[in-house]
Amino acid sequence: MIYFKDGEFLTEDKLNVSVNDRGYVFGDGVYEVIKVYDGALYTAREHLERLLESAEKIRVSMSYTIDELLEIAQKLQADNQISVGHIYIQVTRGVAPRAHQFPEDSVPVMIGYAVENARPLEILQQGAAMKSVEDVRWLRCDIKSLNLLGNVMAKQEAFDHGCQEALFVRDGLVREGSSSNVFGMKDGILYTHPANNFILNGITRRVVLQIAENLAIPVKEEEFTLSQALQMDEFFYTSTNAEITPVVTIDQQPIGQGVPGPLTRKLQTAFEAQIPKLVVAGDTKEREANGPAS
Amino acid sequence: MIYFKDGEFLTEDKLNVSVNDRGYVFGDGVYEVIKVYDGALYTAREHLERLLESAEKIRVSMSYTIDELLEIAQKLQADNQISVGHIYIQVTRGVAPRAHQFPEDSVPVMIGYAVENARPLEILQQGAAMKSVEDVRWLRCDIKSLNLLGNVMAKQEAFDHGCQEALFVRDGLVREGSSSNVFGMKDGILYTHPANNFILNGITRRVVLQIAENLAIPVKEEEFTLSQALQMDEFFYTSTNAEITPVVTIDQQPIGQGVPGPLTRKLQTAFEAQIPKLVVAGDTKEREANGPAS
Repeated sequence: MIYFKDGEFLTEDKLNVSVNDRGYVFGDGVYEVIKVYDGALYTAREHLERLLESAEKIRVSMSYTIDELLEIAQKLQADNQISVGHIYIQVTRGVAPRAHQFPEDSVPVMIGYAVENARPLEILQQGAAMKSVEDVRWLRCDIKSLNLLGNVMAKQEAFDHGCQEALFVRDGLVREGSSSNVFGMKDGILYTHPANNFILNGITRRVVLQIAENLAIPVKEEEFTLSQALQMDEFFYTSTNAEITPVVTIDQQPIGQGVPGPLTRKLQTAFEAQIPKLVVAGDTKEREANGPAS
Repeated sequence: MIYFKDGEFLTEDKLNVSVNDRGYVFGDGVYEVIKVYDGALYTAREHLERLLESAEKIRVSMSYTIDELLEIAQKLQADNQISVGHIYIQVTRGVAPRAHQFPEDSVPVMIGYAVENARPLEILQQGAAMKSVEDVRWLRCDIKSLNLLGNVMAKQEAFDHGCQEALFVRDGLVREGSSSNVFGMKDGILYTHPANNFILNGITRRVVLQIAENLAIPVKEEEFTLSQALQMDEFFYTSTNAEITPVVTIDQQPIGQGVPGPLTRKLQTAFEAQIPKLVVAGDTKEREANGPAS
């Protein structure tokens, strides 16, 4: 695999991550995952804009522009000959002797790579099982940071219970998945958590909201409880790799008929239909005409 | 500097941290800092026991016993010829292709190093300034994990305000410092936060509680508010490197007379006095006779 690090494209054996990289000792950094479909980056600009936003929120000064980042991401896709997969990019505050406060003169370390991975077609078809988990994460879930231990533990708890994804519940309210956003459908209305500090405002979440608008599906960005989630007619989670994954059970209780619902299917179909129109990274006009609000 | 990694003692250039180490992409690991005084490790066994406890809490299987870890820590001290400084040890869940759930067959990665750093004598003498900061960290602060971005941001906020340490306040209650525990003294009673999920149960915190008991100073492990903290007669924070640091102001408001208080001085003196009795790592009897409850 070809990696990017600090301006160079390298094989892994040449990649030198420092033990004093603040990413390694503090998780002091941010990241993005960009989907590749048929060799082309999907909603890349939106992801890279969010990367810059996350970096700004933790006061890491990025030295790359969006266009430079796009070029790097595209080269990672090309050099690794990715057809369907994703690009991973992370930026840390850099290398410095360990001390909590920001180092005076550290230079951010950016690494990137690209991997082939197929769309989860079976689960997109059959639906997934979720396990509710107490949300003990920090209160800045709007930052796509490398501090993911809470997410890791929740995902594993879901797996331990034979589920594919965890459903974070804080103060009795459903927040998001361990690596996804969640949506419920009740009486024809689509519900999802408002984009505040309790969730990451996912790019796929934004795409779905745009599609819902296009399809004239009413949307309410409101908090709802776990009990309300269990009473939804349909439920699904979204992420860059999970796309729109139907949820058929939560805590072993069936949602609706316990099969993917018709509105979820409609959104999946619309999601797939708009992919080709969005893949030309850099073609802003095309994206603005067809894509999500960013 | 000589580092330890996976059974070997190496110079930094030979140290190969993988970009796919879960410590680097998830902060999926735990750590300890052990003080060295006059070439000897201080409360090493307590720190290493906590390392195993932290690892267990995040379900990382350590392959080293306490005695093996002690040996490694001692060799790091010796090889680096540390007189006064500290040993840093961290363990991550290991190297694996990035996915939130635990990898099926990853081997934990342990790294360690030792650095010389002098005791902060000036600040121990003159006292420090604290800045209160909203505690937005996760709810498992009892785990000494690598997810430290909240601590990093708080420490920097304190530095930005000319302070040496941040004072975490959650739900109006004082919790701990960004890399320390805190104590307040009021009418001869020593107050500190109970050791629950909102704070790390510091080793120096435990030493201070033991010293207080020895000196017949009454202790209440109770929550208190920021307003109450500001009304304390004395205030101090504790950590492996900060020892017992008097706090003379919080949010620019003087604590007591705005100088280190007499009971804080008494605890500092007693702390220094018990160091030589504790430094012989591995001498359990001596430690049990004189040291903190672990």
